[in-house]
Amino acid sequence: MSDVVLAGVGMTPFGKFPAATNGSLARAAVAEALADAGVEPPAVEAVFAGNAVAGLITGQEMVRAQVALAGSGIAGVPFFNVENACASASSALHLAVRSVASGQYDCVLALGVEKMTHPDKARSFAAIGTAVDVEAAAAAVAAGGGAPKDRSPFMDLYAAETERSMETLGAEVADFAAVSVKNHAHGARNPRAQYGSEVTLEEVLGSRMVVPPLTLLMCSPIGDGAAAAVVLSAGRARELGVGTPVRVLASVVRSGDPAGRMPPAPSRAATAAYDEAGVGPDDLDVVEVHDAAAPAELAAYATLGLAGTDSPAALLRSGATRLGGRVPVNPSGGLLARGHPIGATGIAQVVELVDQLRGRAGDRQVPGARVALAHNNGGVVGADAAAATIHVLAR
Amino acid sequence: MSDVVLAGVGMTPFGKFPAATNGSLARAAVAEALADAGVEPPAVEAVFAGNAVAGLITGQEMVRAQVALAGSGIAGVPFFNVENACASASSALHLAVRSVASGQYDCVLALGVEKMTHPDKARSFAAIGTAVDVEAAAAAVAAGGGAPKDRSPFMDLYAAETERSMETLGAEVADFAAVSVKNHAHGARNPRAQYGSEVTLEEVLGSRMVVPPLTLLMCSPIGDGAAAAVVLSAGRARELGVGTPVRVLASVVRSGDPAGRMPPAPSRAATAAYDEAGVGPDDLDVVEVHDAAAPAELAAYATLGLAGTDSPAALLRSGATRLGGRVPVNPSGGLLARGHPIGATGIAQVVELVDQLRGRAGDRQVPGARVALAHNNGGVVGADAAAATIHVLAR
Repeated sequence: MSDVVLAGVGMTPFGKFPAATNGSLARAAVAEALADAGVEPPAVEAVFAGNAVAGLITGQEMVRAQVALAGSGIAGVPFFNVENACASASSALHLAVRSVASGQYDCVLALGVEKMTHPDKARSFAAIGTAVDVEAAAAAVAAGGGAPKDRSPFMDLYAAETERSMETLGAEVADFAAVSVKNHAHGARNPRAQYGSEVTLEEVLGSRMVVPPLTLLMCSPIGDGAAAAVVLSAGRARELGVGTPVRVLASVVRSGDPAGRMPPAPSRAATAAYDEAGVGPDDLDVVEVHDAAAPAELAAYATLGLAGTDSPAALLRSGATRLGGRVPVNPSGGLLARGHPIGATGIAQVVELVDQLRGRAGDRQVPGARVALAHNNGGVVGADAAAATIHVLAR
Repeated sequence: MSDVVLAGVGMTPFGKFPAATNGSLARAAVAEALADAGVEPPAVEAVFAGNAVAGLITGQEMVRAQVALAGSGIAGVPFFNVENACASASSALHLAVRSVASGQYDCVLALGVEKMTHPDKARSFAAIGTAVDVEAAAAAVAAGGGAPKDRSPFMDLYAAETERSMETLGAEVADFAAVSVKNHAHGARNPRAQYGSEVTLEEVLGSRMVVPPLTLLMCSPIGDGAAAAVVLSAGRARELGVGTPVRVLASVVRSGDPAGRMPPAPSRAATAAYDEAGVGPDDLDVVEVHDAAAPAELAAYATLGLAGTDSPAALLRSGATRLGGRVPVNPSGGLLARGHPIGATGIAQVVELVDQLRGRAGDRQVPGARVALAHNNGGVVGADAAAATIHVLAR
């Protein structure tokens, strides 16, 4: 895997942009990534594009990337529309990385884009709810008296999981609030974050209750955005004189075991990624994790082995995962504060890590960061994540 | 590419199956393909799954394959949901083939599945209509007085293209009817075809006018179905003692140029595929083409160079593309008679060709077939196909 390089990255600000389309968002992120890499559009040999819900939000069910990138200058080459729920972009990136690692291509574009906002907010929530077995979910909703209209049904799953896992995580509700406080503090330093302000513990705990114990500020928001990465062979990167190439040490995708007999998909992905990268948790300088709700960040500490013999909550309380700590987690603000346009998130994490590894992360720079990890999950089938991806990057 | 083998294929009958789901269809096709290959479900190392419109038909917008294959015995490994409109399955197959060709995997499953029928037929037609830029199409429809409710808006595109191309094809309307007669005659010999009966020229010409000059029997039907292929490295195929392995000589995907400055995507794909396979049109013993409407089969003759210096219509009239002719086209019945559950079609073509190359195609066997080609297109963006794929296979 040492021969694959992320030569350029780009992303739009994340937020609610009523006038934006998947096309306008995608083209902006792609143009920035290509410029960052010093690559002209016609040099792109293939496109792997993640998007999760355009079929339900904009009605563009098919050939999403071909439509979004019409007029971008990238045409004719193979396009693949890739979907794995909230791990769509990282799955697209994985396929891009593998296609270069195999020698098939030297210059590939990975894209994640999502227009999630809709004038009817219930439609956005309903769309998010299709990252599970919708037939089984409909039966459960019918038995339970109807679908929630004021939240993603996913938050109900997160809340139930949270109740089950608080003891394992060593966590109290205040810890979940503290995750949100930390990530909003990080996001306040990220000009592209959806939330640009710090929040206090009291504000998080006092915000509207979504599903106990999760308050609004413990849940990732609905938003729009796109993120892109230019994946080059090491040889092409040398030819182009890419200044600070970021190497891909590992790119791993796993799906869940609906029957729950295997370890959870994110754990299997992490084990495989550490093995592929030849690094361990202690080698990580900076990490982005899938904090779709605040408790999920603590679960990710456990999944990734960041806490050693401590509990995840103890790691959080120690300050190690804050900017300035031993292993900052979610310096971008994470899903909670940077935002979570679901099909874009997996590459947005990688954009942050590339910026960190290149030393251009501004006010949120992790000094001397050399090894970074992105952890991204998508969907739920049975008792497990439908998709789990890990990327390990290094300069 | 000589080191990749299609070791087993399977498909459901194609047709209108109100009680079927994407899951029931997918699991049936996959079980048949695995049994054909002599591979147990846990031996599958990755899944590439094509589906085009589940988000709009069943509501399963995300993690479609993980949901469809829950309970199939394939779990935990990487799953990728791949979409390229009517070329979704062949795009999934391409990624599966490349992932084995690169040495990343030795045993990969490629799947195409589509539940297209819906109690409200207008919903099926509307779903098919999302294989174009839906925003541009909506503007065109608004300008034109509203969307058709009794047909796929795609047929309007095909009709317009037909009017433009009749001279180039050397074709009259009777030739389009003759394509349908031929393919229905082939389909009548295919127990899995949606239409199991022959039709006469008079019946085709006399069937309901959909959009002039296309009558109902010149258009592929709406239907449900799934098709699967087990892709093995040559080494794994030898270990497993696969009896008559079918080699993949070429697997090519191209996207369109919305601006129309490049040659059409299907032509570029065909050129690249012949080059990759090291064969030409004269080497083909049997061909499956994307006859979504009857004129498209004649256009495919030109794209693939099947007619030499003759016109496509002259090739058809010569009988060369009938079973028993020099290069039978669409022995399965093609999209017109076998059926066209859009996300399944690209692999259904390959199922037919593998059966032909293995000499097990029953009443429609092409004697001694050794080299076969599948031609599959998906969507339209601007002036070109959004996706075009070609697979060349040999025994």
